[in-house]
Amino acid sequence: MPKTSKRGDLMPFSPIRKLVPLANKAIERGIKVYYLNIGQPDLHTPEKALDAIRNIDRKILEYSPSEGIYSLRKKLSEYYHTFNIDANVEDIFITCGGSEAIEVAFMSCLDPGDEIIVPEPAYANYEAFAIVAGAVIKSIPAKINKGFRLPPMKEFEKLITPRTKGFMICNPNNPTGYLYSRSEMNQIKNLVKKYDLFLFSDEVYREFCYTGAPYISAFHLKGIENNVILIDSVSKRYSECGIRIGALISKNKEIKQNVMKFCQARLSPPLIGQIVAEASIEGTEDYMRDSYEEYSERRKFLIDGLNRIPGVYSPIPMGAFYTLAKLPVDDSDKFCEWLLSEFEYNKETIFLAPASGFYTTPGYGKNEVRIAYVLDKKDLATSLIILEKALEVYPGRTE
Amino acid sequence: MPKTSKRGDLMPFSPIRKLVPLANKAIERGIKVYYLNIGQPDLHTPEKALDAIRNIDRKILEYSPSEGIYSLRKKLSEYYHTFNIDANVEDIFITCGGSEAIEVAFMSCLDPGDEIIVPEPAYANYEAFAIVAGAVIKSIPAKINKGFRLPPMKEFEKLITPRTKGFMICNPNNPTGYLYSRSEMNQIKNLVKKYDLFLFSDEVYREFCYTGAPYISAFHLKGIENNVILIDSVSKRYSECGIRIGALISKNKEIKQNVMKFCQARLSPPLIGQIVAEASIEGTEDYMRDSYEEYSERRKFLIDGLNRIPGVYSPIPMGAFYTLAKLPVDDSDKFCEWLLSEFEYNKETIFLAPASGFYTTPGYGKNEVRIAYVLDKKDLATSLIILEKALEVYPGRTE
Repeated sequence: MPKTSKRGDLMPFSPIRKLVPLANKAIERGIKVYYLNIGQPDLHTPEKALDAIRNIDRKILEYSPSEGIYSLRKKLSEYYHTFNIDANVEDIFITCGGSEAIEVAFMSCLDPGDEIIVPEPAYANYEAFAIVAGAVIKSIPAKINKGFRLPPMKEFEKLITPRTKGFMICNPNNPTGYLYSRSEMNQIKNLVKKYDLFLFSDEVYREFCYTGAPYISAFHLKGIENNVILIDSVSKRYSECGIRIGALISKNKEIKQNVMKFCQARLSPPLIGQIVAEASIEGTEDYMRDSYEEYSERRKFLIDGLNRIPGVYSPIPMGAFYTLAKLPVDDSDKFCEWLLSEFEYNKETIFLAPASGFYTTPGYGKNEVRIAYVLDKKDLATSLIILEKALEVYPGRTE
Repeated sequence: MPKTSKRGDLMPFSPIRKLVPLANKAIERGIKVYYLNIGQPDLHTPEKALDAIRNIDRKILEYSPSEGIYSLRKKLSEYYHTFNIDANVEDIFITCGGSEAIEVAFMSCLDPGDEIIVPEPAYANYEAFAIVAGAVIKSIPAKINKGFRLPPMKEFEKLITPRTKGFMICNPNNPTGYLYSRSEMNQIKNLVKKYDLFLFSDEVYREFCYTGAPYISAFHLKGIENNVILIDSVSKRYSECGIRIGALISKNKEIKQNVMKFCQARLSPPLIGQIVAEASIEGTEDYMRDSYEEYSERRKFLIDGLNRIPGVYSPIPMGAFYTLAKLPVDDSDKFCEWLLSEFEYNKETIFLAPASGFYTTPGYGKNEVRIAYVLDKKDLATSLIILEKALEVYPGRTE
């Protein structure tokens, strides 16, 4: 049998994925599992979006244009302008989820051996798509005791080599919920400018900023307009992760030319998803306000609750719907495994995401977990009790 | 501004795509254009499939599993078994169209610099996805005057190097409509076995075989079960190209492990498309029979008509819904351009695909075009008249 690809060997197998069979087995044993491990919101998709497919009157579900349906791109352009993001129709490419936007961005900008700098903890699939493109991620850990703020620029500068081609951020951040300040965004801008880098900016959680601090898009940064590639997705904001509709946005002619070629190779983004996405953008202001308020309350409730548990510390996340918390445990991979395979409290347990999957620097995140507040307050309350009880008896407790 | 990727520079820009603006301009001039250039069927999507989305009763359009929804994979498994293809549920990965299946297959099996051998003319995006994976396509032209049958194996053997990792076929073939015989498939099997290659087999047109000759799947070949990666898609058989649902099928444990990692990186295939695809597989026997008969009649009508035009020659395609025909012209790129920009007959013209896009060997396909019989017989009749009239006056006519 021929040897499969080295690239395949390199691809990470997420620690969360490894735990899924354990969660399934717990359920088989009659245990109720609270899923705090993934970014799948429990909120309903807007009724208006569901109606758009229920009322579909097409006879043929045909290919859509490779760059996406014009009317959807137009609505997105208007949406972005409400955030002062100057993205015109011709700057917007519809992709199969934010995932494909990341992949196409890397493919269009990076060659094998090229390097991108990423502050971590970071969304695990940035690394996966870097491997797909043959690129190398160089990362610098942001520290939980500094609230995950951007490490000093001189740390990043140490990583610059002749192969450094880009800088990647997620803002508001998955997994930390951190929101970059104007000053931090300016530091990033200066670095990008000084070393002439691409700035890949994943901003899918822009709707969810809770502290009144401003959301600074990479598109707001003056003087690097041609360096920025914005990654977006409708998945989280309208609770429609399954339709696989994202977007790649760039003002740079050369990037756009490349992006179009990769988009043409895969023919077109999902048609029905585009119809759903288009229906979600307009006339859903009430829905968005309700979602925002719901997440906002859950956030306060969860963070207060976490910080009341002895030995647990969570910084206050400013955006998205995650927090990365520190637990008094020896190894969060082991702890999360133990929660699913050995622990129960009143026949219930919780599924947390070990933070090791969000770091590439070895040893980091060993006592951290990501908690997604994608369950309602009642379930969050129960989950907090389960966590507290679990930590009381976990054999690998450290303090 | 940083330099975009060399990979992006390498990506082909299809000659068909270059002609689209000319077609749009022709329409603006009041010319009716018959689109024979693309594989977008005009047949309606099955009503049963459309009903499946009209009746959707979900509250959340959530992520589906990375490998695809179980019930769809199960129905596909049963479907494949009716073709004597031993694909079990655990061998089937749902992808975002056949396109993603090709990409993931290449990513899972090939590293930068690895080579795959492809008989040409071939579907242009094999080359695109090879470039995405950093792999190199080595091709050998099949000859139109031999009906596009497989070139002799010794021609392929000449291309084998230490980097040769795979062989790729499309059967029934896009763009030629050729269907590989049992003897040809055995030759391919022997080559794959002798040099221990992966066999990538794109079989999305299996439903459309017209001559009574058997469809031999790569999965039917004994002794190379671990080498075969089958590419499939529901797009063409149910006229639902827009839903982007394909499949990658393999019995090989190592390949499947890799494939799963790439599938997890992009999270999940489109949810609603999977619902449509699942509804299309069962209870659509009448629809499939009608489609088959329709294409079958069109094929006969088109090929007869083409071969009656002086100087035109089309082999008799045995499957799919394309033919690659030879025209008495100097350069089919120029001819196709001329048809859209300078010619009209009764205020109408035709859009053909220049064959140059299906060859990587320079100079090949210069007087060939691909014609997709995705229009009804009335429109095909008109298109044949337009082609005949055009050839009578085309300034670059060669005979």
